[in-house]
Amino acid sequence: MTTLPESARALIESGRLAHCVTIDPDGGPQVSAVWIGLDGDGDGEDTEIVMAHLGEHRKVRNLRRDPRITFSLEAAETNAIGMRHYLVVHGTARVTEGGAPELLRRLGRVYTGGEFPLPPDPPPDPPPGYVVRVRVDRVGGIGPWT
Amino acid sequence: MTTLPESARALIESGRLAHCVTIDPDGGPQVSAVWIGLDGDGDGEDTEIVMAHLGEHRKVRNLRRDPRITFSLEAAETNAIGMRHYLVVHGTARVTEGGAPELLRRLGRVYTGGEFPLPPDPPPDPPPGYVVRVRVDRVGGIGPWT
Repeated sequence: MTTLPESARALIESGRLAHCVTIDPDGGPQVSAVWIGLDGDGDGEDTEIVMAHLGEHRKVRNLRRDPRITFSLEAAETNAIGMRHYLVVHGTARVTEGGAPELLRRLGRVYTGGEFPLPPDPPPDPPPGYVVRVRVDRVGGIGPWT
Repeated sequence: MTTLPESARALIESGRLAHCVTIDPDGGPQVSAVWIGLDGDGDGEDTEIVMAHLGEHRKVRNLRRDPRITFSLEAAETNAIGMRHYLVVHGTARVTEGGAPELLRRLGRVYTGGEFPLPPDPPPDPPPGYVVRVRVDRVGGIGPWT
């Protein structure tokens, strides 16, 4: 477990897409772009990265089998030779049931700047879904967090 | 093998960072942001995605052992409910020796808009390095390519 530097926390909460990697049953990478946020004490090691899914998508099933997960996010800044900063977070996930609509609404405001219409086209009673909670193991990439 | 749709080709050549996933020896994901380009006939199935490395970095060693590779790139557009388009390309890589400085200079002009100073601080005689050539197996994500 590790503590996220403040610069990494700020990027995670800035509404930049996270490229999320889990491992398929055949050992190959499964990749999708996701909305993520933080949950927990701002300074403590108990802060987790969270994401929400209304259905039991492939990444959720993958994480039940192999909890290793990696996120990669671009920053706006570049370094002295023009290479863009990016943050890689390696973590360990646990899948919890329920709470997805609430977290999607919270993240939707950050990512879309408005009220996100929960798909499909919003249902009157969205399923409780799944919240994936990720403990941070190590941080990499290029930027002030490395 | 598959043919890249024109929309995917355009995104790959637009200078957006590619989040590149390879598989570590322990089966976990290794992720870094890379510069990529296309090489080959514009319409044919023989088009490959190419990237260059001056040293035998971990991703190059990983690809020698397990050639599965995935790239994920963000587009500028969003869909009707505010979700950003992104392209995922799954492919099979082969590592070739030499040619890295030339390809880095070509990609550097796309990605930085100028002449990229080859690290370290440019050497008078950069090592020939490695060019990774990726055959496209399938395409995913959200956008006109799916």
